[in-house]
Amino acid sequence: MVRENEVRDAEVAIEAPAASDAGLVFIGRIHTPWTSRLVTPRQGRIDGPVCRIEVFEPWVPALRGLEAYARIEVLYWLHLSRRNLILQSPANDGDVRGTFSLRSPVRPNPIGTSIALLQGIEGGTVYVRGLDCIDDTPLLDLFRSVTPDNGAVMWTSSPKAQDPGRL
Amino acid sequence: MVRENEVRDAEVAIEAPAASDAGLVFIGRIHTPWTSRLVTPRQGRIDGPVCRIEVFEPWVPALRGLEAYARIEVLYWLHLSRRNLILQSPANDGDVRGTFSLRSPVRPNPIGTSIALLQGIEGGTVYVRGLDCIDDTPLLDLFRSVTPDNGAVMWTSSPKAQDPGRL
Repeated sequence: MVRENEVRDAEVAIEAPAASDAGLVFIGRIHTPWTSRLVTPRQGRIDGPVCRIEVFEPWVPALRGLEAYARIEVLYWLHLSRRNLILQSPANDGDVRGTFSLRSPVRPNPIGTSIALLQGIEGGTVYVRGLDCIDDTPLLDLFRSVTPDNGAVMWTSSPKAQDPGRL
Repeated sequence: MVRENEVRDAEVAIEAPAASDAGLVFIGRIHTPWTSRLVTPRQGRIDGPVCRIEVFEPWVPALRGLEAYARIEVLYWLHLSRRNLILQSPANDGDVRGTFSLRSPVRPNPIGTSIALLQGIEGGTVYVRGLDCIDDTPLLDLFRSVTPDNGAVMWTSSPKAQDPGRL
């Protein structure tokens, strides 16, 4: 159920320490068709729309060789997520579960991970399918996936396996 | 080949912008048998040693429910890695590849991801197999993996697939 940053019944928020143990740099931006959380899919699909990952300078030369891989892992910053819930109610029904047992975007360090299908690279732009993040999501990293390129289990063996890596 | 932070022949370092776009909080610490990079394995093994993930307060209650999953994803901060190489020479032989085509720990945002096998949880301590990071690595996140619990492809189908997620 989509959350608009409210704390729900039985959820537990904490006073978290300042997030200052390490700093991130946004190395690009992800462009998707989804401009609000109400329409953003809960998980990506390999037959979903092609999304565009824009890599900023000075990191563009670091893409060299990525074209050899069919499947790439994408890390991004869930910039709209609150960070201070330790117990969450995914169904908003009063039942709560620990944040670490969920792939909810609400996390102490809101880093998203997805396995995406590489469609092409042009200059500093990487085209992929299989993402599920909102338009303008900040990019943290890209790397070849360790999922075998036949991808059988990741994409087809069970409903759970069809989730390409949503947090 | 283990790097002790030197820049090798033909590698390219950049002047990266300050890493101040977002802040991380270290939510725990990972205890492994490996106290130097010279002995840390390049990839984890499910029959490797049990490692101990210590979760700090106030996040311990967020572990509730994690015990239901055999396979968990672990995100951690590669605190010893330099961040400014865009072309790297993994074999130290003058041949270079782009950072994003590698799972090297040297990255603009040095976040490590591993799939680990859950062995048990006691209070704020999570016991797992399959990690490959150095002792005292800072913890960023834990969550259930989307890898199916039979884990066939991730662990056994090919040499590439046996890498449990090393960056």
